[in-house]
Amino acid sequence: YADIGIHEDMLADTVRTNAYRLAILRCWEQIRGKVVVDVGAGTGILSLFSVQAGARKVYAIEASVLAEETRKVVKANGMEGRIEVLHGRAEEVELPEKADVIVSEWMGYSLLYESMLPSVIHIRDKWLKKGGLMLPSEATIYLAPIADVEVEDRLQFWEDIGSKYHVDMSALKPYAHRCVTRKVQVKPVEMEDILATPAKVMTFDLTEVSAEDLSCVQGAFSFSCYGWSQMQGFATWFDVLFPSPKPVLLSTSPYSEDTHWMQSVMSLDEPVQVTQDTRVSGVIKITPNNRNNRFLDMTLKYSIDDREEVERLYPMDDCR
Amino acid sequence: YADIGIHEDMLADTVRTNAYRLAILRCWEQIRGKVVVDVGAGTGILSLFSVQAGARKVYAIEASVLAEETRKVVKANGMEGRIEVLHGRAEEVELPEKADVIVSEWMGYSLLYESMLPSVIHIRDKWLKKGGLMLPSEATIYLAPIADVEVEDRLQFWEDIGSKYHVDMSALKPYAHRCVTRKVQVKPVEMEDILATPAKVMTFDLTEVSAEDLSCVQGAFSFSCYGWSQMQGFATWFDVLFPSPKPVLLSTSPYSEDTHWMQSVMSLDEPVQVTQDTRVSGVIKITPNNRNNRFLDMTLKYSIDDREEVERLYPMDDCR
Repeated sequence: YADIGIHEDMLADTVRTNAYRLAILRCWEQIRGKVVVDVGAGTGILSLFSVQAGARKVYAIEASVLAEETRKVVKANGMEGRIEVLHGRAEEVELPEKADVIVSEWMGYSLLYESMLPSVIHIRDKWLKKGGLMLPSEATIYLAPIADVEVEDRLQFWEDIGSKYHVDMSALKPYAHRCVTRKVQVKPVEMEDILATPAKVMTFDLTEVSAEDLSCVQGAFSFSCYGWSQMQGFATWFDVLFPSPKPVLLSTSPYSEDTHWMQSVMSLDEPVQVTQDTRVSGVIKITPNNRNNRFLDMTLKYSIDDREEVERLYPMDDCR
Repeated sequence: YADIGIHEDMLADTVRTNAYRLAILRCWEQIRGKVVVDVGAGTGILSLFSVQAGARKVYAIEASVLAEETRKVVKANGMEGRIEVLHGRAEEVELPEKADVIVSEWMGYSLLYESMLPSVIHIRDKWLKKGGLMLPSEATIYLAPIADVEVEDRLQFWEDIGSKYHVDMSALKPYAHRCVTRKVQVKPVEMEDILATPAKVMTFDLTEVSAEDLSCVQGAFSFSCYGWSQMQGFATWFDVLFPSPKPVLLSTSPYSEDTHWMQSVMSLDEPVQVTQDTRVSGVIKITPNNRNNRFLDMTLKYSIDDREEVERLYPMDDCR
């Protein structure tokens, strides 16, 4: 996370950053005069917000070499008396005192891809006072069946391109289809393409969730389609909730404003015709990849009306 | 190279693909009834062109699993009698006969980044008949001093973004500058930004160049600037030449049509004011990276008028 491009994307994402700003400022009564830990501080912006909300002390933990730069940001904002940047891994860092509040932007694509949640849990269990405040405090993953003509449009390329060169390249279409749909695709989904009321497939209470709970996350779903359409896949997204007198919701739903997280799509091998009240039901399972625990394995088991049940693994290994 | 996205980009690049098609068809007198080797055949399109030009036999060498798909393309074009797809590394594959022609699209960013040229040389030395035809037969790298406001525009972000959130993030600007300019940047350069007549810094005769010649490539340059401007860096690009009664040039210059190779930019640490006849001279050295020989180290040594000489290394490690 030392590369600046990622931080550009995150700060340019005003939906994300404003949600954190609003949530932190709204919690000023719980933050004023208190100790805050910012896990994975990055550019330090959440630490700055915490001081603006009145924190007595903020410990900004950053594992990458960016920590050196975070110190400069703190100084440029005249907050060096209030924010202490700790350069180290959350699992290894020592704080001089326990904290009243943890603030962290730990979410990855599909919520859990390359997520920092295990580090946040570690800090919570070791350094947060009993009953302390978690910002955010709850996370929910959603799933919905979708239409997705983008894949088909992209594959049309192989039908069309050959004629430019007086050859036939369409034999590559099935291979291209396998390449494109083999993995989870991080891309924007339009709300018009959602084919049924989205299901909450799992919710995490961030004040309680354990690292063990994350080793195999799963949830069931059962949809009843709105009407006649081709179903090409499933989309997932998430939201996180900030508790406060007036709660703040940061949503990455296709129904909300776009964020840099976009949505995650798992394509069916073949489109399926659905119509009003077509039943789509099953289970989604999300586990860390065996070889690299920053990567995810998403397994979908589903049936559409009385068709045969399908089970398929969608790896989420290299999304950028 | 099994990922389909790369092949989409290459086939969608009509400048590239049409140059090969034209060059191969124009060489029909040297190809008709002859044996052709296509090194790194990919989707097989250059093999198809070679059969269209009258080749008796084409050996299409492809190291990745794509080879299986290339066979399907060959069959769909009814050329399975003429094209034999060999799944293996160029260094290991055995051909049943020597070849009259080598056709290969081996060029990477800045010509040599992740390039397949060493494989082409290997095949040439082992399997090409004496005096056989190389398509292309010559490659040239160009360099020019450039204006480049894009970096400055991008860094302006750090001045502007903080005000959206009532904080000051401008302290990150120097770090962002180092991140962005540390490496060779593959991006488009506009012809208006070229500040002096480009220099040919090196030319490779592909009928003779050896793998050893590639271990340290260098060339000198001396520019005389057109006029008043800020100079922010140097750009490099290349062209390759196909010999034939009417030669074909595939150019990736900012003065030519855009290609997927774009140009490569090396930024100065600080902009330098140049004016008419300002002298910019020096040496560029391109060597394979010690740890990963698909990566490049570009070293620039230059002086601008009578300023002190600057020497800087620009790695080219992970460009996509």
